[in-house]
Amino acid sequence: MTTSHIQEMKTIVKTGRVLTDESDRYSYSFDASFGTYLPDVVIQTKNAEELATLVKMANRERIPVYPRGQATSLSGGPLPVHGGIVLDLSVMNDVLEIHDDDLVAVVSPGVLTSNIHKAAEQKGLMYPPDPSSSHVSTIGGNLAENSGGPRGLKYGVTKDYVIGLEVITPQGELIRTGGRTVKNVTGYDLTKLIVGSEGTLGIITKAILRLIPKPPAAETVMAVFDSLVDAGTAISKILTSGILPAKMELMDQASIVAVENYEPSGLPRDAAAMIMIELDGHPLAVKDEAEQVSRVCKEAGAREVRVPRTQAEKDEVWKARKLVSPAIVRIKPTKISEDATVPRSQIPEMCRRLQEIKAKYNLELVVFGHAGDGNLHPNILADKSDKEEMRRVEQAVAEIFETAVQLGGTLSGEHGIGTMKAPFMEMELGAEGLDMMKRIKDAWDPNHIMNPGKIFPEPGQKLVLSE
Amino acid sequence: MTTSHIQEMKTIVKTGRVLTDESDRYSYSFDASFGTYLPDVVIQTKNAEELATLVKMANRERIPVYPRGQATSLSGGPLPVHGGIVLDLSVMNDVLEIHDDDLVAVVSPGVLTSNIHKAAEQKGLMYPPDPSSSHVSTIGGNLAENSGGPRGLKYGVTKDYVIGLEVITPQGELIRTGGRTVKNVTGYDLTKLIVGSEGTLGIITKAILRLIPKPPAAETVMAVFDSLVDAGTAISKILTSGILPAKMELMDQASIVAVENYEPSGLPRDAAAMIMIELDGHPLAVKDEAEQVSRVCKEAGAREVRVPRTQAEKDEVWKARKLVSPAIVRIKPTKISEDATVPRSQIPEMCRRLQEIKAKYNLELVVFGHAGDGNLHPNILADKSDKEEMRRVEQAVAEIFETAVQLGGTLSGEHGIGTMKAPFMEMELGAEGLDMMKRIKDAWDPNHIMNPGKIFPEPGQKLVLSE
Repeated sequence: MTTSHIQEMKTIVKTGRVLTDESDRYSYSFDASFGTYLPDVVIQTKNAEELATLVKMANRERIPVYPRGQATSLSGGPLPVHGGIVLDLSVMNDVLEIHDDDLVAVVSPGVLTSNIHKAAEQKGLMYPPDPSSSHVSTIGGNLAENSGGPRGLKYGVTKDYVIGLEVITPQGELIRTGGRTVKNVTGYDLTKLIVGSEGTLGIITKAILRLIPKPPAAETVMAVFDSLVDAGTAISKILTSGILPAKMELMDQASIVAVENYEPSGLPRDAAAMIMIELDGHPLAVKDEAEQVSRVCKEAGAREVRVPRTQAEKDEVWKARKLVSPAIVRIKPTKISEDATVPRSQIPEMCRRLQEIKAKYNLELVVFGHAGDGNLHPNILADKSDKEEMRRVEQAVAEIFETAVQLGGTLSGEHGIGTMKAPFMEMELGAEGLDMMKRIKDAWDPNHIMNPGKIFPEPGQKLVLSE
Repeated sequence: MTTSHIQEMKTIVKTGRVLTDESDRYSYSFDASFGTYLPDVVIQTKNAEELATLVKMANRERIPVYPRGQATSLSGGPLPVHGGIVLDLSVMNDVLEIHDDDLVAVVSPGVLTSNIHKAAEQKGLMYPPDPSSSHVSTIGGNLAENSGGPRGLKYGVTKDYVIGLEVITPQGELIRTGGRTVKNVTGYDLTKLIVGSEGTLGIITKAILRLIPKPPAAETVMAVFDSLVDAGTAISKILTSGILPAKMELMDQASIVAVENYEPSGLPRDAAAMIMIELDGHPLAVKDEAEQVSRVCKEAGAREVRVPRTQAEKDEVWKARKLVSPAIVRIKPTKISEDATVPRSQIPEMCRRLQEIKAKYNLELVVFGHAGDGNLHPNILADKSDKEEMRRVEQAVAEIFETAVQLGGTLSGEHGIGTMKAPFMEMELGAEGLDMMKRIKDAWDPNHIMNPGKIFPEPGQKLVLSE
């Protein structure tokens, strides 16, 4: 990038900032995954027209453009791997409208997801997707990655709630997709193509989200098991009993012990697994369903089943689940968080294979996550300064991906492909399937300026964590 | 098409049939919309590999390929407007598997949708999308058009339940998209791009559908109004009362009278509107919700509210709604069924504008449909042999589309664009938005052999019903 490029950008960005100091740029060189890449320039503006003009210029000059929210990505989504421009969209946070008569929210990409939750709840409504990062991540990032979360079991993922977008195409045109209606079959569904495309097909500058009435009540059930297989059986039986819980989370022994070490609260260190279930809906319904779920857990061999009565007791149960991530980094400093996902019936087998992988590569591997929809989070704890250990991590991660695909599952349930999983794309999709995706990328972004280096593997690319 | 083309097709299709007799071909020349187009050949085979080889040949020879289910399309989806090959996929009906432990169904495209409903229910599960045609339409057609139906209000549309596909690309490659997991962010969402693309991006040869536990109970509420605006108000108030009904259907006076003339059952001929609501879920919850909904309807000015107690009484209420379509064709023989959809808050205004259009063009116009999600079905009854009347229909249809778009809605909520709505695409999407769709079509189907003449308007194309 030349100084005349920077000069032109400063002319375009009238209402925002063009950051070029190394100290500023450094703050934009990493996310919550691996690697550090310094951008040439960082741009902040709330103005979609200015952004569109910038993208036109970048396309003309073949300068890479990296859209970015709060950079909580676990797969490298916002990393500026080829330098160029980082667009800091976290500043574009001025629109957060709840239209309760249409049951929709209209939002800017920089709005924090938890603020959408709050605004909807104030009107008796709910925006269901709840990635664990919702207090720090932007809706724009959630849209780019199609974020999931525990409520995915009953309510689906981010994509299921996006009905319209305003998008800057990779050639700098501002287009609108979808609209304010839930039913819309006017042409191809560009909305759902763009959501989850990890910023490689354009920049989302506004979104229309579908809301639902907030369920009036919720109950929690916690069940403790001496066997991971029994826990898996309980999960299966609940799902075929006619009840669809809002959440169904699993913690294995390693996660239980880690949380209990981190903040002791009397969790059963000797248990093989715990499952936590949330039922939401009509007050009479969830009371009855909590009893039914308790019964199923006992029949499946749970040694203890609790239905907390007060809100404080319920919060206590869910706090344990939330503490897993902060707790496990006490084991070792480098956390490799995966989200390989399998069909629900394969959860027990996936758990078994993960234990084999843990033993085979002699690693600290913890399993927890959204068991109800097959979206487990095997986390490996390691030390990135230990090259030999990191090579074992690379092999273990590859084997986790292979296992998930073998069991009929997928590389990524909710974290995205980004840089880390790109080398494994062809294994899951086949050359032809990957080619159909590439054709869309090439047709929309012929100069490959929009978030290059993501999703699509470079020829011969391998997973490297050990350098 | 030459005889040597036919000869080559006969060599490729070893397990099926190649139909060339005019009488056979004639049966494949129309659907439930307008126009008659004779294909050159009709092919029936259950074998996806044979189909893929056929498509490779068609692509090489630039022969149009028209996939077709049971041809219940209201927008011209399967019409072979440029001749060529019709693929009769209704014969590909051999796979209908319910995997209750994964909560998925695996189906062939020729399976009738109602058979999926039945198979799921036998295992205590539900496949929610329920287009009114489900007893005669194939799941393949539902997938191609992204069909909706009354349960869309609570459960969404076909697309929301498709998690994986097997597809023959326009160049004859057999690919798989998605899989058996609800959460999947591995690359672009080709599944949701293909569903609703009206057969223009490939041929679906297998689908993996997400199922949910079947709700154990359902209640019905029927409310009669002296004013269409009051009915609209009731609909809005129910949706913001914290209750999400499974269905919320509207019938205007013209539909009530038509049904009562067709099969008298004591419907209130003098009422301005009726709404019918179904609540499903836990037995205790739906009982309580039915009472709440009744109260809201009364407060909104309903002159009569009924909560039928027995299943027979409930069926009676829903039968009236189902009879609308057969009843209204008694008014005049030619039915033009639209599905322009508006944001929920615009339902009363849309109803008002439809009455204006009816008066302005002096037409028989009946309004009913899925009021809860803004997806009304204005139906015009006319006589296609009356050219002058059909020209007024053309103008009225164009004005309905314009009104829907003006009110922030869309040309089509669930019927698709096909041939009839193609001329109006740019009005809704803008030139740039339409161009981004075309780029995908061109990248996937460079020779434009896959269902050509659909979705994308020809230069200068206009709606013509009067010849």
